[in-house]
Amino acid sequence: LEDPIRETGPRLAELLKDAVRGDGPLYRLVAHALKQAIDRGEIALGTVLPPERALARSLAVSRATVVAAYDRLKAEGWLESRQGSGTWVRHPDDTSAGGVDAVSTSRLFLANDGRGAPADPTADVSSDSDVIELSVAAVTGTSVIGDAVESLTRSEIDALTAHHGYVPQGLRALRQRVAEHYAAAGLATQADQVIITTGAHQALSLVARQVLHPGDSVLVESPTFPGALDVFRRFGARPIPLPVDEHGARTDIVAELVDRASPAMIYVAPHFHNPTGAVMPLERRHELGTIAAQSDTPVVEDLALADVILEPIDLPPPIAAVCPEATIHTIGSTAKLFWAGLRIGWLRTPEPWATRMLATKTVADLGSPLLSQLIAVRLLDRMSDVQQWRRAQLRPRRDQMCSLLTELLPDWTFRCPAGGLSLWVTLPRGNAEEFADVALRHGVAIVPGPALSVDEGNRRSLRLVYAHSETDIEEGIRRLATAWEAYISTTASRSSARLLV
Amino acid sequence: LEDPIRETGPRLAELLKDAVRGDGPLYRLVAHALKQAIDRGEIALGTVLPPERALARSLAVSRATVVAAYDRLKAEGWLESRQGSGTWVRHPDDTSAGGVDAVSTSRLFLANDGRGAPADPTADVSSDSDVIELSVAAVTGTSVIGDAVESLTRSEIDALTAHHGYVPQGLRALRQRVAEHYAAAGLATQADQVIITTGAHQALSLVARQVLHPGDSVLVESPTFPGALDVFRRFGARPIPLPVDEHGARTDIVAELVDRASPAMIYVAPHFHNPTGAVMPLERRHELGTIAAQSDTPVVEDLALADVILEPIDLPPPIAAVCPEATIHTIGSTAKLFWAGLRIGWLRTPEPWATRMLATKTVADLGSPLLSQLIAVRLLDRMSDVQQWRRAQLRPRRDQMCSLLTELLPDWTFRCPAGGLSLWVTLPRGNAEEFADVALRHGVAIVPGPALSVDEGNRRSLRLVYAHSETDIEEGIRRLATAWEAYISTTASRSSARLLV
Repeated sequence: LEDPIRETGPRLAELLKDAVRGDGPLYRLVAHALKQAIDRGEIALGTVLPPERALARSLAVSRATVVAAYDRLKAEGWLESRQGSGTWVRHPDDTSAGGVDAVSTSRLFLANDGRGAPADPTADVSSDSDVIELSVAAVTGTSVIGDAVESLTRSEIDALTAHHGYVPQGLRALRQRVAEHYAAAGLATQADQVIITTGAHQALSLVARQVLHPGDSVLVESPTFPGALDVFRRFGARPIPLPVDEHGARTDIVAELVDRASPAMIYVAPHFHNPTGAVMPLERRHELGTIAAQSDTPVVEDLALADVILEPIDLPPPIAAVCPEATIHTIGSTAKLFWAGLRIGWLRTPEPWATRMLATKTVADLGSPLLSQLIAVRLLDRMSDVQQWRRAQLRPRRDQMCSLLTELLPDWTFRCPAGGLSLWVTLPRGNAEEFADVALRHGVAIVPGPALSVDEGNRRSLRLVYAHSETDIEEGIRRLATAWEAYISTTASRSSARLLV
Repeated sequence: LEDPIRETGPRLAELLKDAVRGDGPLYRLVAHALKQAIDRGEIALGTVLPPERALARSLAVSRATVVAAYDRLKAEGWLESRQGSGTWVRHPDDTSAGGVDAVSTSRLFLANDGRGAPADPTADVSSDSDVIELSVAAVTGTSVIGDAVESLTRSEIDALTAHHGYVPQGLRALRQRVAEHYAAAGLATQADQVIITTGAHQALSLVARQVLHPGDSVLVESPTFPGALDVFRRFGARPIPLPVDEHGARTDIVAELVDRASPAMIYVAPHFHNPTGAVMPLERRHELGTIAAQSDTPVVEDLALADVILEPIDLPPPIAAVCPEATIHTIGSTAKLFWAGLRIGWLRTPEPWATRMLATKTVADLGSPLLSQLIAVRLLDRMSDVQQWRRAQLRPRRDQMCSLLTELLPDWTFRCPAGGLSLWVTLPRGNAEEFADVALRHGVAIVPGPALSVDEGNRRSLRLVYAHSETDIEEGIRRLATAWEAYISTTASRSSARLLV
């Protein structure tokens, strides 16, 4: 009854058939192939797997082989089973290692919440953890939220609650602010093209729901925002990596990738790409938009970090403005400049799509909370003040992190970004996932490249978030330096072998 | 590229094959069959239909036939097409008739918003409409929301915003309140079994996403909350009607329906069922739960209206408490007692399901807005006060509506409910959809039975919401009486013929 993909059995056998012909213990081959299929989106999160006996029969292996493969993946947190509910696919969100060990957004947030207090600000904060957190790309501590709540007048709230409260598209006042914001950035927008969402994440989910189907491929920057990978996998879509350099997505190879993979969608973050901070120049935007238009491939441009600007910079207009003939869905949020807990984002969609997207939003939740939207109106009215304040807060932290890295870890390489919240660091050797484990034992949480990447790529890279206090950055980088010393002295010889696993 | 169901073409031809063998003009047969397939969930909302030429070929009819069928459904608002995007399935949300013409929740809300001002409290209210609204089952005008916002202290908000703000499961303080609320109702609940959602509607969407697949059937009370039908259709599931009497769902026939249809899920509202207000007695809860457990069919019990209690009544415990051995997902909300615009609801799920449901919520939107959750904590703390206040507000309105109906429309039949927000009225003759159109021309918006029913059933029934001001109720029922006189004098002879269409 709970089988999310009715054809899981036969489809799975098909996916795994080749695996069992490889070298090595059969159960490891099956486990590895299963994990790859999950990671590529060929098996959606939540999928209930066939019973061990049934899969064993389809693969013509012993039941013990499948039992051992499932057990291994359960131990690694990729599968979970319970009496009467079967075995299903999940993200490894509470591995036996414990603590913050970010493999994906879900895993990160679930792990945090699993620890209890830290993820829940109204719980008793037991401060159980001495771990310094450089992994969550989010800002805190602006008084602007409190100011906005205090600025709400009683008559305003009473006027709002005199309405029945169902407004699926979102408050017109907020949609109007968003439209004006994009118009000022060069992207002419009507309020009716805007749908208010529960964060940029929901905006991406709504587009994915409209556009993606199991088996589709999605061209996605790698590295990227890990929540996006979760969304694509959830819909059973297969992410295809689009490499990123210091100018963002490598648009010179997009045409070839589109030809080869016929993706159902392209996902890019052209303004202060997460995690690299890269800004895609105008020519690349034009190139990408033109390919999208010619191949009739919809594009999602994620501008969630576009407003976190740390240096004077001439940002090109959004891709939707550069190539109006392409189908470009633009998503944004109040999360990265103001505060993620507000959970107010938006989707700006080409006019012909607006009705369909609104129907999808309506069925999802009948609209996002109105009081939070009213607060967002206040925040957007103060955007340029808050941008200045945020710049004054973040720039010194970014600079501090850059100079500490240069001083203490001189063979690590990175670029100092003009905006966004993170550095993308490349290690001179070793394996970033292994190192992240070592770092955690030394009391620093960081996200290794594979967690942000398609096919667990970028194994020598890390994301370091500088949106934390100066004290945490100072101590965090010092601990990383100690961890690095420990790591290279003990594992240098093993690491190249590990890369083959 | 945008084809949401890759096999739409062949599948559709399969669905329509029999239709073209009926009597009457071919294009009408095709149009009718298409509409039925949409309504039964056999074709999901948003599905892109095959090009006219392709469908014509599969059905062996002329292209002109398919063009005419599509055109007819476009005129009725069931299809929409645009250059370059094809023709897709939608709900008739802005029919040429205009105004509030509720066929489903989506349609209702979209139509409202389409009219501009009324659905958006922060827009200039142009008061364009003299229509009295008896169709939206929602409350307004409690000062408790304003009080709750005012009661937030600055230090509380600052403490909240010191956290990064990503809390997918929801604030622990709120989950704890919800758990205590259910425990007090006889349903022992841990905070970790609770996920905070954007309204009860999202809670239902999350369960549907976990449980339903295209082609599944869902056993659902008919009539029911129309948003639920939208959710089921969206996932391509086929609603099977479960009749309702004055004691709620007819559990005496559930076993037979489960046997016959093997539904993937059962959806019921046992406390103050929307729209009838029925309360399911303990024996029926037990019967339903037992069948669910024996057949391993998950149940969603929607308690969204459970807290709107107008008479002293011994409410039985939730079905999840009566039959703990069954898989029962319990959903609730702050919408109907406090205010729907807060958009804070919850899902209480059996412990083994909690992790999976949380993963689904995380992928959907990374969590609901935290400030709205903080306000909800305040509201739940004041629940019994607000229940008293709400009872004092709504009981006179309900009684007023009942006595006006008895006086002015003595041949309409209805039952006076002990809770909830609406009356379920049966007309002595005629067709409720036709009458709803007549009523709208007379300046009253009401929801006809088919909009709340599977297979457009309950054609002689209406929902009348009494959660409106005394003035509106008085004037609204008077207009209904005039409309009824006009309707029966002109259409009595035609209406029986219409029932065959």
